[in-house]
Amino acid sequence: MSYVLYYSPGAASMAVHWTLIEIGAPFEARLVDLDVGSNRDPEYLRLNPDGRVPTLIVDGHPIRESTALLMLLAERHPAAGLAPALGTPERAKWFELMIYLANTLLPAMRDLFYATKDGNPEGADAVKALATRRIEGAWSKLDLSLLGEEAYLVGKQRTTADFLAIMLMRWSRNMESPATNWPNIQRYIARNSTLPSFIELNKRENLTAWP
Amino acid sequence: MSYVLYYSPGAASMAVHWTLIEIGAPFEARLVDLDVGSNRDPEYLRLNPDGRVPTLIVDGHPIRESTALLMLLAERHPAAGLAPALGTPERAKWFELMIYLANTLLPAMRDLFYATKDGNPEGADAVKALATRRIEGAWSKLDLSLLGEEAYLVGKQRTTADFLAIMLMRWSRNMESPATNWPNIQRYIARNSTLPSFIELNKRENLTAWP
Ligand SMILES: N[C@@H](CCC(=O)N[C@@H](CS)C(=O)NCC(=O)O)C(=O)O
Ligand SMILES: N[C@@H](CCC(=O)N[C@@H](CS)C(=O)NCC(=O)O)C(=O)O
Repeated sequence: MSYVLYYSPGAASMAVHWTLIEIGAPFEARLVDLDVGSNRDPEYLRLNPDGRVPTLIVDGHPIRESTALLMLLAERHPAAGLAPALGTPERAKWFELMIYLANTLLPAMRDLFYATKDGNPEGADAVKALATRRIEGAWSKLDLSLLGEEAYLVGKQRTTADFLAIMLMRWSRNMESPATNWPNIQRYIARNSTLPSFIELNKRENLTAWP
Repeated sequence: MSYVLYYSPGAASMAVHWTLIEIGAPFEARLVDLDVGSNRDPEYLRLNPDGRVPTLIVDGHPIRESTALLMLLAERHPAAGLAPALGTPERAKWFELMIYLANTLLPAMRDLFYATKDGNPEGADAVKALATRRIEGAWSKLDLSLLGEEAYLVGKQRTTADFLAIMLMRWSRNMESPATNWPNIQRYIARNSTLPSFIELNKRENLTAWP
């Protein structure tokens, strides 16, 4: 099993990078610097026609979509225990939550950061307003699910859903109401951000300190 | 394995309903009539706090998110062959495509149909304009992937990605540029809509004829 990760610090590639470190699988990380537009290099566009990160080369094939990559890695590395066992009620909840994060928070974050680029600049404020409402709604929902001082989002086990959620929470840090304003989320982040793989990730991507 | 599906004709529950029929697993279907607002009944809100369909009761536990349910059903019923085998390159592509449909087309369709309800009505036109652009972009992308007259979206095998994609394509039928305007998509739909489980689904949900 060979992996090459194309990433940009703090971008959607971050959760995949974190997962690869946590799993302990050998991989090569290649920087795609969004700040200087390396994602538009013809060579990169051949791997990822939309010019987005991440792309993970899996046994020679370029695969996109951060959420998909997290699910795939959990499946390919069962010993890492990053997804609940097949047939358990937690397994169903893991699917539900991964998809919820993927089709609610991820697209709303895309709207927030890229409304002007993806759409008509005149409409960007309206798009961002709806995105903000959805993001805050999602924090309330996740906060409620952590009310019992749960350490993890799914069952009693750390899963890829935690890596995806914490990446999304980090992205809200400059919003008027960042995710850390929700008390159960704040405790959840504080607890999970001491994980050695998260500290290592921050070092490798040279991320600004958070939380 | 017991299933109860809460559905509304033609809604996001449709792909799950189709998959259940195709698998041949016993299940009970319960109508949640969106037209009369049954999705806001307190009893239903206990299963699905956002009042959306589908909800699938899996061994007694309510699970949401159509894409998640498709992936879960494919995993729980491997004999139905609705997902590529573990460890194959097609498996990775299946994850990628399921997530692409889930975090690009599904949220854009939500914007198109619910911009006024989910957000500020004044901003709805801008939200719908961006959604339309994204939906049309997705058809172009999917059309390109079907250029070789492929029968299915992933490899040489029918998967849940086809059920999800065809549901989304059906939703575009009243748009200015419905998915059927794209020639490879049109051929793909024509071929897959002769499937007995699709015909049975149309009968059970009493859907208007399409394509
Ligand atoms: N759905 C994709 C989204 C990826 C995405 O939007 N990445 C952003 C960075 S967070 C990007 O590459 N932006 C550059 C651009 O769109 O030009 C995923 O989850 O992998
Ligand atoms: N992400 C959800 C979306 C479900 C959804 O938005 N369903 C719509 C019908 S297609 C619904 O229930 N609408 C009623 C409402 O929002 O009030 C899924 O894929 O299951």
